[in-house]
Amino acid sequence: MNSWSRYQKSKKLSKCENERIFAICLGEQPLGKKISVAGWIVDFSDIGKIGFVKVRDVTGTVQGVVTGDVLARTREIPRQSSVLIKGIVSKTKAKDLPVEIAVDDVIVNGKAVHPLPIDPTGRIESSMDKRLDCRALDLRNEHVLTIFKIRSEAVNVIRNVLRSKMFIEVNTPKIIGSATEGGANLFELDYFKRKAYLAQSPQLYKEELTLGLERVFEVGPYFRAEPSHTVRHLSEFISIDLEAAYLDYNEIMDIVDELIMSTIESLRTLFPVNIKSTNHYYGNSIESGIPRLSYEECLNELNRSGEHLEFGDDLSDAALRTLGTIHNGFYFIKDWPTKLKPFYIQEHEGRKDLSKSFDLQFGYLELISGGTREHDPNNLRNKLIEQGLSTESFSHHLRAFDWGMPPHSGCGIGFDRLMMVLTSSDNIREVVLFPRDSDRLTP
Amino acid sequence: MNSWSRYQKSKKLSKCENERIFAICLGEQPLGKKISVAGWIVDFSDIGKIGFVKVRDVTGTVQGVVTGDVLARTREIPRQSSVLIKGIVSKTKAKDLPVEIAVDDVIVNGKAVHPLPIDPTGRIESSMDKRLDCRALDLRNEHVLTIFKIRSEAVNVIRNVLRSKMFIEVNTPKIIGSATEGGANLFELDYFKRKAYLAQSPQLYKEELTLGLERVFEVGPYFRAEPSHTVRHLSEFISIDLEAAYLDYNEIMDIVDELIMSTIESLRTLFPVNIKSTNHYYGNSIESGIPRLSYEECLNELNRSGEHLEFGDDLSDAALRTLGTIHNGFYFIKDWPTKLKPFYIQEHEGRKDLSKSFDLQFGYLELISGGTREHDPNNLRNKLIEQGLSTESFSHHLRAFDWGMPPHSGCGIGFDRLMMVLTSSDNIREVVLFPRDSDRLTP
Repeated sequence: MNSWSRYQKSKKLSKCENERIFAICLGEQPLGKKISVAGWIVDFSDIGKIGFVKVRDVTGTVQGVVTGDVLARTREIPRQSSVLIKGIVSKTKAKDLPVEIAVDDVIVNGKAVHPLPIDPTGRIESSMDKRLDCRALDLRNEHVLTIFKIRSEAVNVIRNVLRSKMFIEVNTPKIIGSATEGGANLFELDYFKRKAYLAQSPQLYKEELTLGLERVFEVGPYFRAEPSHTVRHLSEFISIDLEAAYLDYNEIMDIVDELIMSTIESLRTLFPVNIKSTNHYYGNSIESGIPRLSYEECLNELNRSGEHLEFGDDLSDAALRTLGTIHNGFYFIKDWPTKLKPFYIQEHEGRKDLSKSFDLQFGYLELISGGTREHDPNNLRNKLIEQGLSTESFSHHLRAFDWGMPPHSGCGIGFDRLMMVLTSSDNIREVVLFPRDSDRLTP
Repeated sequence: MNSWSRYQKSKKLSKCENERIFAICLGEQPLGKKISVAGWIVDFSDIGKIGFVKVRDVTGTVQGVVTGDVLARTREIPRQSSVLIKGIVSKTKAKDLPVEIAVDDVIVNGKAVHPLPIDPTGRIESSMDKRLDCRALDLRNEHVLTIFKIRSEAVNVIRNVLRSKMFIEVNTPKIIGSATEGGANLFELDYFKRKAYLAQSPQLYKEELTLGLERVFEVGPYFRAEPSHTVRHLSEFISIDLEAAYLDYNEIMDIVDELIMSTIESLRTLFPVNIKSTNHYYGNSIESGIPRLSYEECLNELNRSGEHLEFGDDLSDAALRTLGTIHNGFYFIKDWPTKLKPFYIQEHEGRKDLSKSFDLQFGYLELISGGTREHDPNNLRNKLIEQGLSTESFSHHLRAFDWGMPPHSGCGIGFDRLMMVLTSSDNIREVVLFPRDSDRLTP
């Protein structure tokens, strides 16, 4: 956490501009200076006439020394209460602190009413459900807090890499008029007396946008009405979508390589304790590029491992787990059978049964899916018909392919899943503030 | 556009790494070098044995000189078709170009089928509705393209300023379980056989998050089921929400000041032609800080202008237009009557009829709304009851105020409306790629 705090502090901090400072700024204040720190009480100990109060904010922890009637008042404040402590920067005998605060006043800003539903210090463990019911309080747990700091930094690194490559950030609608892509798992809503749906992806929009914006990306929420109960599915999730004219799926994999590498490098610097420091976890991929296996190579490897699959079979969780043990960390699986991929993925010229597609895997977990898109309007119509979809409901989309559509490729990054990998979390609910599944609609 | 392109180009451009380059990179290529440019044909002219083809991509325009059978083939390619031109970097006689391309091959990647539904060069004007029906093609209009480049840069500046102030980026759910804040204008959906709603704002979530994350922001889509037909309302819109512990509404106005100033400064550099270069348009506010008027001062000014309003009256569009002419550009209206603001806004200690609230206005257009929040759980319960809302449906939210809730303040930025101001657009549909209103659900 401290690297992150120092990094943030290196920017301009308005809270540090007057007497009220962030905890991380305390060490640099001159002895004798009058300051205030706002935060919550994490600990209090008392040796008769002198008390030690530990106050934490989002940047770190400070120790205040309280005596006299301030001691008496502090003793009565329940832990986790939000307080403002005022005092003088003073020398400390504590070995792990640069200075302490000789407190002359403590103001309670928000009282914590005990017993609290969960213990945010982590001393008493709570079930995932209980923690999610009290997510705001759960965030005072340092491990949980760090996960969401990491999340905030990760999305920023990814955006910065994309922006540096001329990708334009866009917003596409989440309310859509027709149930495209089959539409089995779409949430339906009443839209001014008409049927509408919540978008499952920005696929059609981002493809169309390459016509004028060339390279686009979007970070946004999407929705899937699938009543699955797993540690890796939610009914609302964040996807990072990108699409680029004139690039093919190999070039998109190059970009993905760079996105993953840049994110891990940046997070390792800011969160050295939390982000694995060896390549063992992420695979050697991080320095040498993520290995790119073809679907057919995967079949061969699986057959050698005793799992017999035929060309055209989808890869089961078990099969992907096996591949994950062979290919440590991240790995691409490319060139999937055409029939396993959506209508908008282009086929290989020589082999129509193979598609220009890829998935990025981490063990059994699919993180990213992408490919070269079919941009010829006639081929696209035929693919829709082959897959039993209605060309009528895609008419708005198909029109755009007669306006001089460039060849294009792209991918969708399951950002919550990527966060699971980056924070070594085994449940997607750990990395989403307020998860939604078929049982959970609150808080 | 060229400042933007140069700025982007100063970063690492993968498209420039091999023979295929962005248009903006052409001027720096050595004469005689073999290169390719991918884009769309915007113009073609022919003087017998020699032809000039203009190809545009997202960064700029190049001119290719075509002769022989390439000329014959190029003549047949409909304008707006997506093409790859290959050739040699050559000296040019054209005064406004650094070099041209002696084309030896033209490959049609995506044919434009004429007549096109709209003319993206802008020579023939189309209605807003027609343009929105063909938005992807509309983006090839330079003015339209620039609006969306500006939008992409603006959100980035705002995020960067917030990140520099220790704000953590979050994602809150868009599907919510109860119709809070009255709930009159919420879209309803079927959520696994239960009633759910689309969020109108992240208000309750962002307030709760200050408990552990202290300062949070979110850029996300929100939804309002209001069948209004104006140039400034949509049923799906992007809001930039921020919330900060230990700050009050004056400090949030300071942050808003900085956000607006930083955004305009950055956009002026990147889009000098498009972003107004004088302070006349934005008001002197940009250098000296945005003026902060109280609601009561506004009433006095309006009364002096002949518009008679009583304390407690809401400010009509007409009243706001009048104020907009007095206070050129941006202005804050603060300290609104308590009864005109939502339950979560704190009252002034001395005057319970006044709230610690503000709106940022540009003329009659409300862009931002914010305030100091009530963080005392008892006061909050009373405010809910006073406003006729059910404390039961807010029970999840109210709980968090007993966990040591810090004082906090924040605001919501109507990003689409801010974009209207920054791009001098008079209809919100100009700055939203695929707008949604009670009539429009496509494309």
